[in-house]
Amino acid sequence: PKIVTLPGDGIGPEVTAAAVAVLREVAPDVTIEEHLIGGVAYDTHGDPFPQVTRDALKDADAVLLGTVGGAQDSAWNLLPRHLRPESGLLALRKALGCYANLRPVRVQPGLEHLSPLKAELARGVDILIVRELLGGVYFDGDRKIDGDTAYNTMRYTTPEVERVARVAFWAAEQRKGRVTSVDKANVLEVSELWRRDVTALRDREYRGVHLNHEYVDSVAMLIVSDPSRYDVIVTENLFGDILSDLAAVIPGSLGLMPSASLGDGAGLFEPIHGSAPDIAGKGVANPAAAIMSAGMLLRHGLKRPEGANQIDRAVALALREHPTRDLGGKADTQTFTRAVLSALE
Amino acid sequence: PKIVTLPGDGIGPEVTAAAVAVLREVAPDVTIEEHLIGGVAYDTHGDPFPQVTRDALKDADAVLLGTVGGAQDSAWNLLPRHLRPESGLLALRKALGCYANLRPVRVQPGLEHLSPLKAELARGVDILIVRELLGGVYFDGDRKIDGDTAYNTMRYTTPEVERVARVAFWAAEQRKGRVTSVDKANVLEVSELWRRDVTALRDREYRGVHLNHEYVDSVAMLIVSDPSRYDVIVTENLFGDILSDLAAVIPGSLGLMPSASLGDGAGLFEPIHGSAPDIAGKGVANPAAAIMSAGMLLRHGLKRPEGANQIDRAVALALREHPTRDLGGKADTQTFTRAVLSALE
Ligand SMILES: CC(C)[C@H](C(=O)O)[C@@H](O)C(=O)O
Ligand SMILES: CC(C)[C@H](C(=O)O)[C@@H](O)C(=O)O
Repeated sequence: PKIVTLPGDGIGPEVTAAAVAVLREVAPDVTIEEHLIGGVAYDTHGDPFPQVTRDALKDADAVLLGTVGGAQDSAWNLLPRHLRPESGLLALRKALGCYANLRPVRVQPGLEHLSPLKAELARGVDILIVRELLGGVYFDGDRKIDGDTAYNTMRYTTPEVERVARVAFWAAEQRKGRVTSVDKANVLEVSELWRRDVTALRDREYRGVHLNHEYVDSVAMLIVSDPSRYDVIVTENLFGDILSDLAAVIPGSLGLMPSASLGDGAGLFEPIHGSAPDIAGKGVANPAAAIMSAGMLLRHGLKRPEGANQIDRAVALALREHPTRDLGGKADTQTFTRAVLSALE
Repeated sequence: PKIVTLPGDGIGPEVTAAAVAVLREVAPDVTIEEHLIGGVAYDTHGDPFPQVTRDALKDADAVLLGTVGGAQDSAWNLLPRHLRPESGLLALRKALGCYANLRPVRVQPGLEHLSPLKAELARGVDILIVRELLGGVYFDGDRKIDGDTAYNTMRYTTPEVERVARVAFWAAEQRKGRVTSVDKANVLEVSELWRRDVTALRDREYRGVHLNHEYVDSVAMLIVSDPSRYDVIVTENLFGDILSDLAAVIPGSLGLMPSASLGDGAGLFEPIHGSAPDIAGKGVANPAAAIMSAGMLLRHGLKRPEGANQIDRAVALALREHPTRDLGGKADTQTFTRAVLSALE
């Protein structure tokens, strides 16, 4: 199988290198090809998602992404929107047809103390957030800034809602069988459609799954004050962006949050943290989320659950014994990565 | 001065009665007139914001609202959208021209243990969230659900952005002088306008205030993991809805969150919690947020800061000595209210 890695900007190259080292160990038969995306791709090719990268994806079985973007005051942010690093990422998601973004939120036994929440609330949390990734306000073409007015359009169609809801129901069947669909149906028509279609799909095809609906404002509160009430959460793009970053507080660091984006073709696997320009190049970034994303790549992209489990166990061990700085420990990127490598059985 | 009270649905009447009792004590010269809104108004007049209520607002100096809406499976939710209880609330906000919703998030000394956050994170938190309340996706007329597609439009104009940003800058001048403006400018044109206009206003008129910009996903995470980094937060309607409910976890209960909505005419003062149909009529609801909203009414609506301070001190005392059930205590609505009344100096 062929994997394309796109290290990107900031700490992206450092954490991707760590993930690749682990991947080579667990799946030595895999071919790895590296390409550019984001700000570095713009600097080299004048395009944050250049044709050469696009071409390389054609026969890829999975894509491992680092991070894209610079500091708030970076020169990239002064470019026209379609040339900025983030646009490269959005175009990549679109090109791969990855409509379902899976973000597991898990508190490892023995790591409850890392959470800003009281330990009894954090203990045992195991939530899967399924975020719709190709629709809503992110991609709708009806958008404009013009003089003193601007707008964006939050649009969904039934097929878009159903395909991502299917992923959530399917995931729930492997887990505790409960899906919470999140919307703002008391205010938005687009949420009314969302709620109607998710309900209809459950009634038609997933009667064994328990479905409930909650408002996004309420979920924002409950997911941190009572996280164990949730099993699978499914929601639209913008709400999912907010809720999944928020949920990262539960384990205690964005540095512990991997993700998998699945869809029509090759899946896209990436840590959910940003490019952290303030620590880029210093060798201190926490590569755990990138390594765990490589684990998700093995599980969902290459259908190798044993390899994925191997990685998860090794990361959990390394986190306990060699916590990185974001977790209050001392390990740098290399020390942590070595710890993972030597914990692989 | 004349105050209109709109107790509304669920626990609204109970908590409003408590707030009125306190208000009568602190401001005995005030005239209070009660009217219907929400589900009860629909049941009586076939309209969640009936003309008789509209008329009563004309010469009001301030409005004290309870809560509106029923349970998720309430019959009201099967009505056409414009007849539902929530639409009554939205129409009320519009009728009053209340474009700036102030939601203070404060952890009272000695009450840190109520927070799901570790006490050292909750201690001393004092944030003011300023939410734009009449624009964005909530009110834009360009919205539709039609067959298998639906959309809403997130629109802002420069005057809408400036008037709410002014409130935030003004508030920051009375506080620590820092404003964080929250948007999703890496994806949305409407956020690009928001950011540009907030920045320009600061540069023109509020040079003494320190302004920074953060993305909504990042703020969702940081507001709970590092709340003391914020002073005043200003944001658009939908982001403000999510972030202010979320911020309620910091003090530990929605029951501790009052709000003030200010604008062109009379202000609107309401607790941010919902109608809690499960406990309605049982006399156990926590009226603290409603009573504190009456305090905000005195401060912002009638310009009587001494009365407001009196209420705030009495509520803090009552919370320590007679915590309600949502706070792990035993006090019912009446016991708590009596405690506030007897703590007034
Ligand atoms: C960088 C940005 C465009 C992106 C998003 O909003 O999707 C990021 O926040 C994420 O969640 O992956
Ligand atoms: C009830 C609902 C329409 C309302 C809103 O979204 O504004 C509520 O959540 C609030 O925050 O006051």
